[in-house]
Amino acid sequence: MITLHTWTTPNGRKPVIMMEELGEPYRIAPVDITKGEQFQPAFLQLSPNNKIPALVDDTADGGPLTLFESGAILTYLADKHGKLLASAGPARWQALQWLHWQIGGLGPMLGQLGFFSKQDDALGKQHFREEAVRLLAVLDKQLAASPYLAGGEYTIADIAAYTWTVAAHEKLRAVLGEELDSKSHVQAWLERVGARPAVRKGMAWQVAGA
Amino acid sequence: MITLHTWTTPNGRKPVIMMEELGEPYRIAPVDITKGEQFQPAFLQLSPNNKIPALVDDTADGGPLTLFESGAILTYLADKHGKLLASAGPARWQALQWLHWQIGGLGPMLGQLGFFSKQDDALGKQHFREEAVRLLAVLDKQLAASPYLAGGEYTIADIAAYTWTVAAHEKLRAVLGEELDSKSHVQAWLERVGARPAVRKGMAWQVAGA
Repeated sequence: MITLHTWTTPNGRKPVIMMEELGEPYRIAPVDITKGEQFQPAFLQLSPNNKIPALVDDTADGGPLTLFESGAILTYLADKHGKLLASAGPARWQALQWLHWQIGGLGPMLGQLGFFSKQDDALGKQHFREEAVRLLAVLDKQLAASPYLAGGEYTIADIAAYTWTVAAHEKLRAVLGEELDSKSHVQAWLERVGARPAVRKGMAWQVAGA
Repeated sequence: MITLHTWTTPNGRKPVIMMEELGEPYRIAPVDITKGEQFQPAFLQLSPNNKIPALVDDTADGGPLTLFESGAILTYLADKHGKLLASAGPARWQALQWLHWQIGGLGPMLGQLGFFSKQDDALGKQHFREEAVRLLAVLDKQLAASPYLAGGEYTIADIAAYTWTVAAHEKLRAVLGEELDSKSHVQAWLERVGARPAVRKGMAWQVAGA
């Protein structure tokens, strides 16, 4: 059985969506980051970088596997089950480059824009807004050329970019405004991806009592 | 033949080191980011995110392959040649999680610290300094437990984290100071990795006339 140690954030929802896509059994062990649970010793054993999500797979090849970093977790689950990521060839690398683009670019930059948007810091706000605007334009251009990030097929790259793009719409509307609404290809992709039952379930997941 | 479209930055040196490790033929097409060459249409065809490095492999399985994002490029080259990344099992995922940690954490945060260290912005400086200090401590703790990031073997995760940690020593000494020198396991790892002939060649690479 796979256990996801996670929370209801953009990175935290990625493996939940993925498990729903796979239709495989899993359990969730919530790590309440609003209470600092990511700093507890038991969690740091799984994720020494004190970030959610982490995965434990006690049926992995070669013995129980612990894994942190959402991008590595998505790749692991895709390869284990042979779904949402081609096993070889150009399609695999197309998907992995866009996954890396989200991990190294879209995610950190939107995250920092979220931080600075709540601060009295005009430079920080402007700097990360510019980067977010640039990245949204890259996303829109790519989605003008193909229905999904890596081409004609929905892959783990879409899951990764989706949760962050939704978060931008929900939490950064005040700073990004028109930059969000003007991206028609992004809007169509959000609807396309968001209509998937697994994505709906993963995005709707809430922790009881939290 | 593999062509690396790249420059002498931490991300740009990663595939150069990798090609030297592999001992395979390659050529470099310099993209002078000090002159904005990453925004030229020919480069954007390869790397729509206008970032170096990008790779073109005209002997890839399934036809010529274009790939951007340094982490995806390292993974591609490792898998193509069966080197510096286990093909399956726990060792593969250990390496990929630390690669993702560099791509999503160490790289962006040190990069932003570099930006804000040159600005009149106390909050930005403090925010990214705190994050860099945290990440260096995570790195040091991991390297106290094993000689390389993913365990006993040198992998692409070490290449990725090495170029950025060297950059922190070279460019961020004024802001990080003692936080760099106090990390004895990081220091030993820098010497261990830096002594490799391929790493020395990749780090010494300069563009003639630049």
